[in-house]
Amino acid sequence: MLAVQLEGGRVDVREAPIPARPPGFALIRLLAAGICNTDLELQRGYYGFSGTPGHEFVGVVVEADEAALIGRRVVGEINLACGACEWCRAGLGRHCPHRAVLGIAGHPGAFSEYFTLPERNLHAVPDHISTERATFTEPVAAACEILDQVVIPWGGEVAVLGDGKLGLLAAQVLLAHGARVHVYGRHAAKLAIAGACGAVTFDNGSLPASRYEWVVEATGAVEGLAAAIRMTRPRGTVIMKSTVHGEVPLDTAPAIVNEITLVGSRCGRFEPALALLAGDRLRVEEMISDRFPLADAARAFERASVGGVLKVLLDAA
Amino acid sequence: MLAVQLEGGRVDVREAPIPARPPGFALIRLLAAGICNTDLELQRGYYGFSGTPGHEFVGVVVEADEAALIGRRVVGEINLACGACEWCRAGLGRHCPHRAVLGIAGHPGAFSEYFTLPERNLHAVPDHISTERATFTEPVAAACEILDQVVIPWGGEVAVLGDGKLGLLAAQVLLAHGARVHVYGRHAAKLAIAGACGAVTFDNGSLPASRYEWVVEATGAVEGLAAAIRMTRPRGTVIMKSTVHGEVPLDTAPAIVNEITLVGSRCGRFEPALALLAGDRLRVEEMISDRFPLADAARAFERASVGGVLKVLLDAA
Repeated sequence: MLAVQLEGGRVDVREAPIPARPPGFALIRLLAAGICNTDLELQRGYYGFSGTPGHEFVGVVVEADEAALIGRRVVGEINLACGACEWCRAGLGRHCPHRAVLGIAGHPGAFSEYFTLPERNLHAVPDHISTERATFTEPVAAACEILDQVVIPWGGEVAVLGDGKLGLLAAQVLLAHGARVHVYGRHAAKLAIAGACGAVTFDNGSLPASRYEWVVEATGAVEGLAAAIRMTRPRGTVIMKSTVHGEVPLDTAPAIVNEITLVGSRCGRFEPALALLAGDRLRVEEMISDRFPLADAARAFERASVGGVLKVLLDAA
Repeated sequence: MLAVQLEGGRVDVREAPIPARPPGFALIRLLAAGICNTDLELQRGYYGFSGTPGHEFVGVVVEADEAALIGRRVVGEINLACGACEWCRAGLGRHCPHRAVLGIAGHPGAFSEYFTLPERNLHAVPDHISTERATFTEPVAAACEILDQVVIPWGGEVAVLGDGKLGLLAAQVLLAHGARVHVYGRHAAKLAIAGACGAVTFDNGSLPASRYEWVVEATGAVEGLAAAIRMTRPRGTVIMKSTVHGEVPLDTAPAIVNEITLVGSRCGRFEPALALLAGDRLRVEEMISDRFPLADAARAFERASVGGVLKVLLDAA
């Protein structure tokens, strides 16, 4: 089978043996996968990663302990949790201290014709959700996580700072939830997608001060957090969505004086993401900038790294 | 009258005229006042301050519009709010954007034989609370603010990182609330006060990782926030109590990956603070390291700046 291999900044596609399926794991044949910013960061050598990346996927179950799964089209939660610790027992395997993470840490990823994942991580994709649409399940779940952490009432006004993939998905999920959403970005084409979904859009060249009760920081930039704090009203909340590498120089005094709450937010549950993708509120197809065969992964990574490009998909043969 | 004057790092005590009382303001004669870390920071020139500092006080009302206040022993909330904006209408004048702050910004402070404050800021001190005990009302209110922001159940285990004045008061308020409190510090004498109040105390030389659901950051040090985040369990909460000057180099990734919430926390309501001081749970008298006459404010500031010293009081003649 073909599998993408990252090593020292290079993206290779190599022949590799089909992986063995441990008990409780499904063997999955890839249909399509999305390239995430995290994959680009793995390529750049953050986390000292080498191996097969990929964690946004749709595949078909080829082998599994549970017969009902075989032949089903599935998406899968990316954290491989131990299933036994207090986090797992509380339904928060995403924070299991013993976890591996598909295509990121300790388990080979989905940019591969075949890969494995625990059966309990899998969710069947309803037939009427297309494969390309379902590739967005994992990042939509990450956007849905905001609503699992912070209570935003219907009609609440939320700012999303950043018009990249994460910002656009957060905006769409919040709009579907019933929030009024203001997106601040600098790419007309990206802001147009947010606008078509019902957001009010603004150029991020001038940001209002102390205006919003809720601000989603999705810039991916070092200076984004301080800007988000400045936009937030006293006693308001900043949802920290974008990880940046290394240390952010942050003056914490404005957050303390204005008693602002900063909420770290990462992966989310797949159930609400699939429910949203089953409806027609999310316009994720418009976020697909390009698609490449798996064998052309090197070109796909190159394309995904270009400024202004949104989602790049890899299609299995 | 005598009034302390800060200018260019110097602490002078000068003769000054008794201030005029605007309508709605009380004229207050000082009984005793506490020196706060903020006062030491004002002395060092942060915020470009010059003038009369002091915001932790007990005084007697000499003149007021409201006759019932005259002759009463009072403490007072330090934010002089406009009383008309949406924040003030919501009972959050502490965040009024038009506010002045007693002895910090735009209104002369309480290290003065006489000073003024809006009558609506004043709270009468019950007779059985001593004046020296009541000087702690403002910092105890700041500690109580934690419980106005974060729900900590009875029996919840909370870490307080830092054994300075703020850390010890936060620990005592949390203990009185019914939490189990672990205080991490490096001064045996200060930790002994926390221990006498019922906290479990630890040397901060080695901090546990991912242990606490709630961590109060009260170190006053640049590295405190990162340490507090490391001590916090996934999905846990860090209460940011200590302002430090300038930018804190912070790796935000652990907070995002572990979905930790950081809550900025500043001033609090006086009502719960006075209620606690009226009881016998808080051992604030043991936190008084020294006291000086107002005329010796320069020596008092010097003493308060010494490492290991807790509260220094100024007494009016």
